[in-house]
Amino acid sequence: MKSSSQFYLTYTCSLLLGLLCVTFVIYWNKQYRGGFAWDGSGKMFNWHPVCMVTGLVVLYGNAVLVYRLPFTQSSHKLLVKLAHATLNLLVLSLAVTGLVAVFEFHNKNQIPNLYSIHSWVGLSVVILFCFQWLLGFLSFLLPCTPLWFRAAYLDIHVFFGICIMGLSLVACHSGINEKLIFVLNTPNSTAPYAQLPSEAVFVNVLGVLLLGFSGTVTWMLYKREWRRKTPQETETLQAFCNSARPKWK
Amino acid sequence: MKSSSQFYLTYTCSLLLGLLCVTFVIYWNKQYRGGFAWDGSGKMFNWHPVCMVTGLVVLYGNAVLVYRLPFTQSSHKLLVKLAHATLNLLVLSLAVTGLVAVFEFHNKNQIPNLYSIHSWVGLSVVILFCFQWLLGFLSFLLPCTPLWFRAAYLDIHVFFGICIMGLSLVACHSGINEKLIFVLNTPNSTAPYAQLPSEAVFVNVLGVLLLGFSGTVTWMLYKREWRRKTPQETETLQAFCNSARPKWK
Repeated sequence: MKSSSQFYLTYTCSLLLGLLCVTFVIYWNKQYRGGFAWDGSGKMFNWHPVCMVTGLVVLYGNAVLVYRLPFTQSSHKLLVKLAHATLNLLVLSLAVTGLVAVFEFHNKNQIPNLYSIHSWVGLSVVILFCFQWLLGFLSFLLPCTPLWFRAAYLDIHVFFGICIMGLSLVACHSGINEKLIFVLNTPNSTAPYAQLPSEAVFVNVLGVLLLGFSGTVTWMLYKREWRRKTPQETETLQAFCNSARPKWK
Repeated sequence: MKSSSQFYLTYTCSLLLGLLCVTFVIYWNKQYRGGFAWDGSGKMFNWHPVCMVTGLVVLYGNAVLVYRLPFTQSSHKLLVKLAHATLNLLVLSLAVTGLVAVFEFHNKNQIPNLYSIHSWVGLSVVILFCFQWLLGFLSFLLPCTPLWFRAAYLDIHVFFGICIMGLSLVACHSGINEKLIFVLNTPNSTAPYAQLPSEAVFVNVLGVLLLGFSGTVTWMLYKREWRRKTPQETETLQAFCNSARPKWK
């Protein structure tokens, strides 16, 4: 099978897995958790997993993949950068909405904020993402940014991009586990988590789908032959970086 | 600063962080959870986080880094492979011990096995790791394995190696969160998780240390100039692979 066919097959898989993740997280909160509202109740909390899964996992994965799509290889790089930045701005707005939903719910119900390792990691991801977006914008979209800085920062931007993907997954899984323990191990629940009621199986499958989506995206980023081909630009930037780097570096 | 000095500085950080992770997980289970035993009690369960953190995170990270250590670049490759395989065999034995500890504890206390997303991911990591070790051994240590197969499998081996690292972290974090909810949100506890008693802070910090360790290892794997330099061997393998690949491929 040709490499481009393999790419499109893998890409289709990632799109389907992403769609399934979003569908599963919406269905879970709609059917099992009572739906959505914006009133500080449990229904307001339900926006939290929906926004985080849709934003920081699925949309974020697709924002990263923009640089791998074969048709963007021939597009003007500024357009690709703008698509990447716009998608990530959408991710940021979803992440902030998700945070507001959980803080409002906690505050209204006098539940302390930021005590679990899930919340520590989750908040760190959002803060890291804000810095990543801002620095990415300043470095790669502002025309006045020196080329040596862009070249020096690119590797760090990509590295933290990978970290954000991993951390989001870590936060989603600990969050899913936490939520299922809280809502199923109560007297109101039809069956505890340990008896694997249908909600538990459904949400565990969501966890598996999240891993499948992230795995597929990681594979597409990892495959050497699918990386964006800009050797000349990279070489020019690298040479410029080496020559124009300030003396103190 | 020279690249090799940067490497050793980062490597020292990773060693220190790894040591801290192991110290923290042992201290947690010794001081806060009553210590260790092998009798099906809660003290037997305590081996589970210790084995998993020490094996599948810290030792595994070090096993992966064997290929990055500058002094191994001039060593005979077979020696490096043997070090990698031996460390991973140790990881495997720790992972199996960790699994036996939790299954025995559950069975003795009539707690169902494998219901949470933590357990699904955790068991998957161990199974994936077994396959990875076995296929790695068959591909890279058996002298009779065809070179075209080694070359074709190398990329997949490295990819799943990265996946195992990420999945271990996902499993550790959901496990830490789950355990703290279970032990702190009970009437016997001095304070619930939400009030952040000292155990909660200590174990959350363990979670942060695990992220720090994995992040440092990922950075060392990611840095292009620290990758093992075997271009000739890779080229020979690749050429051999292309020529000796069976017709059906």
